[in-house]
Amino acid sequence: MEKFEVTILGCGSATPSPKHYTSSQVVDIRGKLFMVDCGEGTQIQLRRSRVAFARINHIFISHLHGDHCFGLLGMVSTFGLLGRTAPLFIHAPGQLWSILEKELAFYYPDLEYKVEFLGFDPAKTTVVYDDRSLTVTAFPLKHRIPCAGFLFQEKATSDHLDREAADFYGVPQWDYIRIKEGGDFTTKDGTVIPHSRLTTPADPGRSYAYCCDTAYNPAMIPIIKGVNMMYHDCTYAADDADRAKKHFHSTSVDAARSAMEAGAQRLILGHFSARYSDESILLNEAAAIFPNTVLAKENLTVSI
Amino acid sequence: MEKFEVTILGCGSATPSPKHYTSSQVVDIRGKLFMVDCGEGTQIQLRRSRVAFARINHIFISHLHGDHCFGLLGMVSTFGLLGRTAPLFIHAPGQLWSILEKELAFYYPDLEYKVEFLGFDPAKTTVVYDDRSLTVTAFPLKHRIPCAGFLFQEKATSDHLDREAADFYGVPQWDYIRIKEGGDFTTKDGTVIPHSRLTTPADPGRSYAYCCDTAYNPAMIPIIKGVNMMYHDCTYAADDADRAKKHFHSTSVDAARSAMEAGAQRLILGHFSARYSDESILLNEAAAIFPNTVLAKENLTVSI
Repeated sequence: MEKFEVTILGCGSATPSPKHYTSSQVVDIRGKLFMVDCGEGTQIQLRRSRVAFARINHIFISHLHGDHCFGLLGMVSTFGLLGRTAPLFIHAPGQLWSILEKELAFYYPDLEYKVEFLGFDPAKTTVVYDDRSLTVTAFPLKHRIPCAGFLFQEKATSDHLDREAADFYGVPQWDYIRIKEGGDFTTKDGTVIPHSRLTTPADPGRSYAYCCDTAYNPAMIPIIKGVNMMYHDCTYAADDADRAKKHFHSTSVDAARSAMEAGAQRLILGHFSARYSDESILLNEAAAIFPNTVLAKENLTVSI
Repeated sequence: MEKFEVTILGCGSATPSPKHYTSSQVVDIRGKLFMVDCGEGTQIQLRRSRVAFARINHIFISHLHGDHCFGLLGMVSTFGLLGRTAPLFIHAPGQLWSILEKELAFYYPDLEYKVEFLGFDPAKTTVVYDDRSLTVTAFPLKHRIPCAGFLFQEKATSDHLDREAADFYGVPQWDYIRIKEGGDFTTKDGTVIPHSRLTTPADPGRSYAYCCDTAYNPAMIPIIKGVNMMYHDCTYAADDADRAKKHFHSTSVDAARSAMEAGAQRLILGHFSARYSDESILLNEAAAIFPNTVLAKENLTVSI
C-alpha cells in the first residue's frame, strides 16, 4: 500500500502549554506533502520532525484564529532562507489575503519564490485541491468564526491485473494499462474476454478528515461518511460540556460520537485545552464510545 | 542588592534549529519585567520559564526581521486570553506600526486591553524608557536593516545612611530620607554635620547592554562604556568572518573585542547560527580574548 500518513506537529489549543504546540500537521500522500494549519512554532516543530519540508507545496488553513495561522510568516521566511524556488500554495478563507498580502509585502518584498494564495469560502463545501491521485474538500465546521474541515480523499487506483489470467488469454504486455483501466481483451480467435475476468478490483481510495476547531457538528457527517481516519477537536472532557459549547469546541464525547456517526475506522483526538495535565481522561471517555481512538501528540505519525 | 537579571528565552539566529528558539529575553529589574525582542515561539518559551509574564508591561523590538518580532501577535492574544487588562507598551522602530496596527485590527478587534505603540528611530541614540529607577536607551547597531541595541541603566539609589553616625549626632528617624538624598544635618547646638559624614555612597547603578543583531560596531562603544553585562551577536565562529560580514552579523572574536573595548564585566554570547551543533568553539574563541564570557541558552538566567 502506498504511503498515506499524518504527522502531528502541534495539537494544543489557543494558549500554548509547556506540553503542546498550537495546531499544525502534515499529511503525506504517496510522497506529496500537505500541511494543515500552521500555528506559531510550526517551523520549529518541522525542524524537529523527520518531515522533508521542502516537499510541502500546499498549506490548508482552517480558519483565521492565530493558533492556526501565526506560523505562516515565519515558515515563508525560513523556506526562503533555505533556498526554496517552488511556489507555495496557501489555501485559506479568502479574508486572510487582506492581511497576509500586506504582511508579505512588508516583511518579504524580495522573496525568491512565489506565495500563491487560493481563497475559499469556509461556509461552503468546496473541492480546494484536485490531482490525479487526490481530492481535498473543505467543508463547514461549527465554530465561533467561519471554519473549515478538510477531507483528504485518495482516488481509487486502477484495477489490478490478474497476471495468471492475462497470461492464460495471451494478453501482450503492452496492452496491460488499457486492461487495468477498464478495457476488455479480444483474443486472436475473436473471443472477447471481459475486463472483470482479467483483473481484481482496485484498492478503494483511503480518506482522512481533519475536523478542528468545531462544536459537535452533525451537518458534516454525510460529507465524511466512511472516512478511514478522523482527527477531531477534543478540547474538553465530558464534564466541561458547557465550556465546550460556549467556546464552540468539542468534548471527548462529541468527538467519539462524531467518529461513530461518520462510520470512521479510527479517531485521533486533538486540540487539547492546557487544563489537562493528564489527557488520559479524554482518551478514556472517548474510547468508551468509540474504542479505536488515540490521543494526538507532537511528532506522532499515524498511517492510514 | 536588588534584583537585576536577564532570562534568555531564545538565542538562535534566523532559521530555528532543533536546539534554539529565535531571539527573545526578559530583563527583570527590581521586579519590573521588560521583554527584549519577541521571535516566533516566545510565548511558548515564556510558559516554560519561571517568568511571571503578567508583569511584562514593556517590550522593546530591535528591528523588523521576523525572528525578532513574529512572536508579538501570539503573545498579545495569549495575554488577552489570560485576562490581561493593563496596557502593553511596544517600543519598536516606528515603521512596525504600519503593519502591526493592521494585524491587531484584523485579528483582535475586541482586545480587552490596550496595546500602545511607541515608535523610535533605530538610527539614533534615544532614551526610550525612563522611570524613577531605570533608563532604557536605544542606540544604533550595524545591521542589514536599521537595528537598535538597548542599554538598561539602573539609576543610582540614594546614599546609604551611616546609622552609627546618625545616632551619634542625634538625627531623628523622620529626617533619614532627606539626609540620604543629600541633606546635611544641623544639631541642636547649631553645628552643621555635612551629608558626607552621615552617609556612605550609593551603589552605582548597574547596567546591561543588548547588542544583537550587529556586525562589529565600534560606534556603540562610548554609549555602553563600563557596562556590567553585555549580550552580543555571536552568529559565527572566527573562520566564518566573511559570512559574518556579508550578513552584518558578528563572530566570536567581534563579540569579545566589543566587550573588551566597552570595558564590560561580563559577556553573554547569543544569536547562534544553526550550523554549530557544538557551540563551545564560539565560547573558546571569545574567552581567549575576553575570559568572563558565557554562552546564552534557553532558560538561562544571569544576575547582574
